[in-house]
Amino acid sequence: MDIEDTLLMMPGPVPVAPRILRAMSKPMINHRGAKFSEIYDDCIDILRDIFKTNNDLFVLSGSGTAAMEAAIGCTIDKDDTVIAIENGKFGERFKDIAGRYGKVAPLEFEWGTSIDLGLVEEKLAEGAKAITMVHNETSAGIQNPAEKVGKLAREYGALFIMDGVTSIGGDTVKVDDWGVDIAVVGSQKCIGAPPGLSMLSVSERAFDAMEKDNLPYYLDLKAYKKSADKSSTQTPYTPAIPLFYGLQEALHVVREEGIDARITRHSTGAAAIRAASAAMGIAMFPDLNEDSKYSNTVSAMKSPEGLDSNDLKKDLLAAGIVIAGGQGRLSGKIFRIGSMGNITSRDILQTIQQLELAFKKRGLVHDVGPGVEAAAKILNIL
Amino acid sequence: MDIEDTLLMMPGPVPVAPRILRAMSKPMINHRGAKFSEIYDDCIDILRDIFKTNNDLFVLSGSGTAAMEAAIGCTIDKDDTVIAIENGKFGERFKDIAGRYGKVAPLEFEWGTSIDLGLVEEKLAEGAKAITMVHNETSAGIQNPAEKVGKLAREYGALFIMDGVTSIGGDTVKVDDWGVDIAVVGSQKCIGAPPGLSMLSVSERAFDAMEKDNLPYYLDLKAYKKSADKSSTQTPYTPAIPLFYGLQEALHVVREEGIDARITRHSTGAAAIRAASAAMGIAMFPDLNEDSKYSNTVSAMKSPEGLDSNDLKKDLLAAGIVIAGGQGRLSGKIFRIGSMGNITSRDILQTIQQLELAFKKRGLVHDVGPGVEAAAKILNIL
Repeated sequence: MDIEDTLLMMPGPVPVAPRILRAMSKPMINHRGAKFSEIYDDCIDILRDIFKTNNDLFVLSGSGTAAMEAAIGCTIDKDDTVIAIENGKFGERFKDIAGRYGKVAPLEFEWGTSIDLGLVEEKLAEGAKAITMVHNETSAGIQNPAEKVGKLAREYGALFIMDGVTSIGGDTVKVDDWGVDIAVVGSQKCIGAPPGLSMLSVSERAFDAMEKDNLPYYLDLKAYKKSADKSSTQTPYTPAIPLFYGLQEALHVVREEGIDARITRHSTGAAAIRAASAAMGIAMFPDLNEDSKYSNTVSAMKSPEGLDSNDLKKDLLAAGIVIAGGQGRLSGKIFRIGSMGNITSRDILQTIQQLELAFKKRGLVHDVGPGVEAAAKILNIL
Repeated sequence: MDIEDTLLMMPGPVPVAPRILRAMSKPMINHRGAKFSEIYDDCIDILRDIFKTNNDLFVLSGSGTAAMEAAIGCTIDKDDTVIAIENGKFGERFKDIAGRYGKVAPLEFEWGTSIDLGLVEEKLAEGAKAITMVHNETSAGIQNPAEKVGKLAREYGALFIMDGVTSIGGDTVKVDDWGVDIAVVGSQKCIGAPPGLSMLSVSERAFDAMEKDNLPYYLDLKAYKKSADKSSTQTPYTPAIPLFYGLQEALHVVREEGIDARITRHSTGAAAIRAASAAMGIAMFPDLNEDSKYSNTVSAMKSPEGLDSNDLKKDLLAAGIVIAGGQGRLSGKIFRIGSMGNITSRDILQTIQQLELAFKKRGLVHDVGPGVEAAAKILNIL
């Protein structure tokens, strides 16, 4: 029996609320007409409050990876150096993308460990055109010190390119205050829309740095700016219209909840999952220092000794819940629970209960209950 | 009053049938799970019959322009020469994209005029890694000789990269027989799905030509191949799930109609529009030679003397119909009627009637009726 009610508790795509799903069924419109411009402008207006920025904002018809590439591909030429901070898979992705366009100065930390700001400063002192960092490293459940790296980048005159794919819309992000030159988010994460779009803010400084004459074409941010600056906003190439319908409705939901309440709901949800893990005797995966935090949108836990997390995923899937395992070198070793978008207490409690059942079945906990109880105590403050 | 029934008679996005719109409202799924693989594989299976190819086929989460860039960006390095045939805006786009990656040997014809195969052969004889051509030049309503250019390209050892954005799925295309190394189509054209996805076929010869080490990242076709070749098909980056739901349903519609019947319906629709134009005394825009044809999916007509086609567009829009004007240098001078996707006789007749009304209002025709009559006579053979 498949009644299409599988609960997605992975770090995106997130479950999409019925009113957002329905919005996508509207007939197509002319993407060069006034109606499309209205939708686009409405989205940008709400995104401005989410990003906390007066910079230019664009919506790309492509995933978060496309926006990461737009950021690097438009600013970095073959002789430019990019410091790529890495403590997880998406930091690695920035490094890989940077390597396609310029020279990489890698700054690698073991996945899941904290970034050493002293080393960041050392690298910056050697000179670089840009520095990339993932704010919320989805693969490891760790929050990196964006504000501090932004400050250092400004001090040393480097562009700060930040992946906020799983933080923007669910955690505190202040693009202008932090000096983020390009910040990137995906539609299918904290914003609660379907996958397929990405949004990014671009500072004047970043535009000034786009000196190369061979920008990527589909991801040409100058072309996006030119189209957006027309009297009636357009996109340079055909936009994914149904996804814009979905994004607009999702952003209306964000506005109705209020961005501050939304951030509180996200941080409370993640705190509940951490409390449940502690109650079940499951250790958190990230190795924190004074500059890093546990993620407020995706929680990464160590798989208990002797348990391959891929097997745990299968147990949960049999119960109708999709959680995530580890990516790449972390496969089998950790499991991750996304609690982003329009996730509710109900979703979190259901997930913890099934986790407890799976652990009990395997003799890893004595009883079902302590995890749910610990989570509930935190969620009750909502 | 807006009851969301505006009739899109432009060359994409096309009207999307209700069952395809509804398909997009299904809940999200894990894009790394078996269900997504099934959807992807089902799409590829049907696309194989539409493209007439045994080459690798991929679906990108990006518009047709993204697929055009993938084709060039993966095969062309800075010292490689690309012959870019241009007789309209999309030929120009290929030229522009090629200029971002390699050396362009432009082969420009006045927009709307025919391609001279003798000049194509001359250019090929000078040597090039690839030659690009738009099969159905949407901006000018002209069909270019893809089969013959494919033959010449093979003879001179150049890759043939073909934009089939508005031909594949609505007109005869034989990727393997014609020797097309990379063929590109958009979702929102003849296939009748919403915009946001593009599909392309890639020959082994094209893969062998991907020798550069700095391929685009989001549009890295080697990465697409690697993910598609996994035991359970995946995409390298998060796919636009709702658009895949829509594409799958649209492709089921194509299969139900049958690709041959679909091509006949498209060519009959365009013939009806041409017959109506003749009856109204409106001249076709393309200047044909023995190697070119009028497009079977979008008809381009000259705007009558003294009439700015942008005003004609407004008249039609007031009647609830979106037609297209001219792009770039053709703005105001021509108007275009798309008749692609799941367009019916009803849609065509309604459009012709409103065109006649608009012309009559402006004193350009004596009466309403001859255009509709001429179109109906052709459509009756369906």
